[in-house]
Amino acid sequence: LKTYLDCYPCALNQALRAARLSKADENQQLFILKQTLSLLQDLPSGTNPPEIGYRVHQIVRELLGASDPYFAAKKESTRQALGLYPRLKELVERSDDPFEAAIRISIAGNIIDYAVKDEIDDLWQTVERVFQQPFAVDDSPKFRADLRRTGHILYLADNAGETVFDRVLIETIGLPVIYAVKEGPILNDALIEDAEDAHLDDCATLITNGTRATGTIFDLCSPEFLREFEQAPLVIAKGQANYETLSDAGEKVYCLLQVKCPVIGTDVGAPAGSIVIRQSAKGR
Amino acid sequence: LKTYLDCYPCALNQALRAARLSKADENQQLFILKQTLSLLQDLPSGTNPPEIGYRVHQIVRELLGASDPYFAAKKESTRQALGLYPRLKELVERSDDPFEAAIRISIAGNIIDYAVKDEIDDLWQTVERVFQQPFAVDDSPKFRADLRRTGHILYLADNAGETVFDRVLIETIGLPVIYAVKEGPILNDALIEDAEDAHLDDCATLITNGTRATGTIFDLCSPEFLREFEQAPLVIAKGQANYETLSDAGEKVYCLLQVKCPVIGTDVGAPAGSIVIRQSAKGR
Repeated sequence: LKTYLDCYPCALNQALRAARLSKADENQQLFILKQTLSLLQDLPSGTNPPEIGYRVHQIVRELLGASDPYFAAKKESTRQALGLYPRLKELVERSDDPFEAAIRISIAGNIIDYAVKDEIDDLWQTVERVFQQPFAVDDSPKFRADLRRTGHILYLADNAGETVFDRVLIETIGLPVIYAVKEGPILNDALIEDAEDAHLDDCATLITNGTRATGTIFDLCSPEFLREFEQAPLVIAKGQANYETLSDAGEKVYCLLQVKCPVIGTDVGAPAGSIVIRQSAKGR
Repeated sequence: LKTYLDCYPCALNQALRAARLSKADENQQLFILKQTLSLLQDLPSGTNPPEIGYRVHQIVRELLGASDPYFAAKKESTRQALGLYPRLKELVERSDDPFEAAIRISIAGNIIDYAVKDEIDDLWQTVERVFQQPFAVDDSPKFRADLRRTGHILYLADNAGETVFDRVLIETIGLPVIYAVKEGPILNDALIEDAEDAHLDDCATLITNGTRATGTIFDLCSPEFLREFEQAPLVIAKGQANYETLSDAGEKVYCLLQVKCPVIGTDVGAPAGSIVIRQSAKGR
């Protein structure tokens, strides 16, 4: 997904929010804003939004030093999600279609996102909504068919807390899963520690993609991760940032997400609030 | 009011919206965005938000030619507001405190604002809300006292349609009023024609401030307007942009507005949605 013009103001907002979360004072915030203005001024065409986000956070880090401003928020999200875990499992067990239930749960977990909203919605309410909602894009028949043929899955994680919802899907699918998180802190994206907090290490092999960027920016990923991606017969990619970076990464990639911004909505052809399971296009 | 850091992303949004309203194509939109980035890059400290808006719209005009993209919207706002006029007059007549009722009506009219939202709220609903709402800032005792002593009023208009609500206040006050609108199109700000459509010429002397900028940017105003401002014993200034430019323009200025953005909210000390009647500080 290329950067749309609406992403420009959004990038500035993201810069401000990151600066403030990192406890920048007013002058530092202004400096970060101005650096972001320059960044946007010189944006190469074809840049995708997570690449902008990566560079915005790089600006913040260069000024303020490396830190993990979302550390506490991530722990809290995981704690809340773990509290729901028994009820989520029950939903799957009682469902006529446990696989679909588990997919919906995994997508419901995608509501946990501090990049877009500062407040987290009531998690259980989101689960209930997602269970009643039709898919705006639904490639699940193809997804089911491909899952039946695959030996293992590369699962690209999104946010801490959402990990618990992913665990329900992974346990339901019952295939070997490599669960890839981020190498370093970026927003509230899950790190190894967050995946372990959610007990993903009990049902998957944990790796990182080698980056501290949202989504999956191939140019930044480690060779080890790229090899896993290459070899994976099927990839599940969670969340908007993975959609933004992988929507044309080939037909073995399935993006599971909630649409959170109008730009993605226009691209995917469904309004904000929609739930999507979409097979990526060829293109790479 | 100086420009806050949160105004930066907002200015980019305004640039995009103005470009699209003026039917700019994708490339023109990008050009306008980039010009706005440069503008923000070089922003002198002490710039206020309407000055940014003025220059953003200047960029749009330079690229696309002069036009009045809000022409139809302004006509429609005035039409809708005129439809409410008899009910607004009735509200005043039936009130125990007609003066306060008329002030509230004038502030309710300030909801008409395409700069902040694309959709207009239900007007009557806003009137009802504003009638039930306490003032978040209330300098009305001082305002009443000053009104009793003044020979005439300079009334600084805001948006088309809001003009009809202003008319109710002007008719209730019953003093000679000079009603100042903008010289050229800027957003949905009222021009002479819009004031005439709302029949302000029946109850006030119409002038312009010589600008095509929101608020009252003294550096851009005509000498004739500045003379009127100088000589006016009391000034009523409607809306956020007038607050942004006149909040320290002296104690004869009373700002009547609805708080529409968090930045103004922080400055005025009241959350978005608040209604405010505030005497300006000295400072000039």
